[in-house]
Amino acid sequence: MPQIPKDQLVSHLTELFSAENVPLPRARRLAELFTQASADGVYSHGVHMVPEILRALRAREITNLDGDPKLIASFGAIERYDGLCGLGAINAEFSIDRAMALANAHGVGCVALRNTRHWGRPGNFGWRAAERGYLAICWTNTPPNMPTWPDTSVNAVGNNPIVFAAPGQDGHHLVLDMAMSQYSFGKMDTHRAEGKPLPVIGGIDADGNPTTDAAAILAGGHPWPIGFWKGSGLAILLDAFAAILSDGFETASLKPGGGDPHVSQVYLAFQPAHLSGRAAGERTEEILRKLAELNPQSRYPGQAALTNRLRSETEGVYVRDDVWSKLSRS
Amino acid sequence: MPQIPKDQLVSHLTELFSAENVPLPRARRLAELFTQASADGVYSHGVHMVPEILRALRAREITNLDGDPKLIASFGAIERYDGLCGLGAINAEFSIDRAMALANAHGVGCVALRNTRHWGRPGNFGWRAAERGYLAICWTNTPPNMPTWPDTSVNAVGNNPIVFAAPGQDGHHLVLDMAMSQYSFGKMDTHRAEGKPLPVIGGIDADGNPTTDAAAILAGGHPWPIGFWKGSGLAILLDAFAAILSDGFETASLKPGGGDPHVSQVYLAFQPAHLSGRAAGERTEEILRKLAELNPQSRYPGQAALTNRLRSETEGVYVRDDVWSKLSRS
Repeated sequence: MPQIPKDQLVSHLTELFSAENVPLPRARRLAELFTQASADGVYSHGVHMVPEILRALRAREITNLDGDPKLIASFGAIERYDGLCGLGAINAEFSIDRAMALANAHGVGCVALRNTRHWGRPGNFGWRAAERGYLAICWTNTPPNMPTWPDTSVNAVGNNPIVFAAPGQDGHHLVLDMAMSQYSFGKMDTHRAEGKPLPVIGGIDADGNPTTDAAAILAGGHPWPIGFWKGSGLAILLDAFAAILSDGFETASLKPGGGDPHVSQVYLAFQPAHLSGRAAGERTEEILRKLAELNPQSRYPGQAALTNRLRSETEGVYVRDDVWSKLSRS
Repeated sequence: MPQIPKDQLVSHLTELFSAENVPLPRARRLAELFTQASADGVYSHGVHMVPEILRALRAREITNLDGDPKLIASFGAIERYDGLCGLGAINAEFSIDRAMALANAHGVGCVALRNTRHWGRPGNFGWRAAERGYLAICWTNTPPNMPTWPDTSVNAVGNNPIVFAAPGQDGHHLVLDMAMSQYSFGKMDTHRAEGKPLPVIGGIDADGNPTTDAAAILAGGHPWPIGFWKGSGLAILLDAFAAILSDGFETASLKPGGGDPHVSQVYLAFQPAHLSGRAAGERTEEILRKLAELNPQSRYPGQAALTNRLRSETEGVYVRDDVWSKLSRS
């Protein structure tokens, strides 16, 4: 179970991306984003994704390695971009940065992005906004990987991960990062690899039986949406928003699996400092303090990531043995 | 089980609100909003809420019967208002209308509203936006009425209903209207009144046992959030956004129960017609068609409301016996 110092991991991954023709500043940023995800404990969407990205780069499946998304249409505080099937995480960072610039100019800003690839860990872009004092909401559609309620025998929607972020004080930001399925595929993959049952029912097996066995859900079963019909409905709406605002592909037109380069995304940013009144960071601190007064057991979204991050600073970043041996050989 | 013609119901409710000193145009609009909720099948947030509002009006608990929310701060495409503890549904309609006006001017618009009352059926404001060609997201915080995960023995957050709406064709709009609890209190109230078990576990009883008995959850138990820790986390973020953007009260500072006039809300509207490209209504129609191709059993949010609405046009609007007898006597 290797624990790699963060700087060393970033340097190593930078070299690997760079060797596959990703221009250096982008190679380093990709390395930082995937390392940060792992440092924050989101292993499934961190360094563990890198071998597959390197494979796709080697196979020349990823194009447009050095270009930003292209502006397609804009009106005031909203902009629409084409990601040109480029690097998902880099396109995503470009988009949240544009949304923040629009929010800085207009109070609120919206960027819709189409034809982009898997963005890695969604929370990265929420943390980025919160650290800069913005509130943010961003989400992506995905290929069909989740059934709608009540007939859960067919994948008809995506699990469409969404992020909500609000700035706090001293790094204690509120950052929610969640898929519409009870468990993300990354989380199920981790449970399968470790042979551990899911804490609650995560979907159905290939025979249609509800199960906590991640392996059974992944092997021909289907994940369940959060809140049954509610997560199913929310997934439909998130997909529609992303496809309409970006004028891009909706889930039903995407190729099943993780590699379709034509996903659609939405990025919203808000600059609360433009409105007079109490500062956002102070309000967040107050909200968390009062929540803890009501129930000292309460956890808040972002809390575990911060704890993991601080531990990774001193102990190094955990990388699974099989992943590290692949990356060391690369 | 009275089925009242829609026009007759609106006229009767208008008279009742008017008799309690609500100025006539607003009395009529309130009557229309609550009638529409019932006509769409959302009985719990429709005419069934009216007796309690009439009681509060009679007791002079509701102030500011004739004033709009007051502008507190604004910057470009974002505005902050104080609802002055006035009529919740009227304040909400004012706010979604302002958000649409801002979206018309800037592509996207945001209104944050504080010190407002229960807005009735949240979906009304999503339908209003979709019918006018806008996409919209709006949500409210609520007094503490739901526990956070994993300790579900204390109500520490609100169930913070949220609406997503996207315009479709020929009235087939996508409108999702849902609380962060697996069941809204209105829905649980309806199941209790009808003595029917909930389809899935809705929370815990007073002894902490998971249950499908709505009466047991309402009598000293606690509702469960959708997706357990996920709905709990989303409720925390929705509350933080509403409180920060409106500079208003967060859930923890609101008085438990339904009557606190200091809730905080957010309204977002998007005008897709300002961006070149395919029309939103056509895209929605295409998305729903492809969803139905993937799974003919799929339902979409807004579908049941439209079916109920069309039936109510011919059959009249259903009002529960005890509610109708209260309103007939009024």
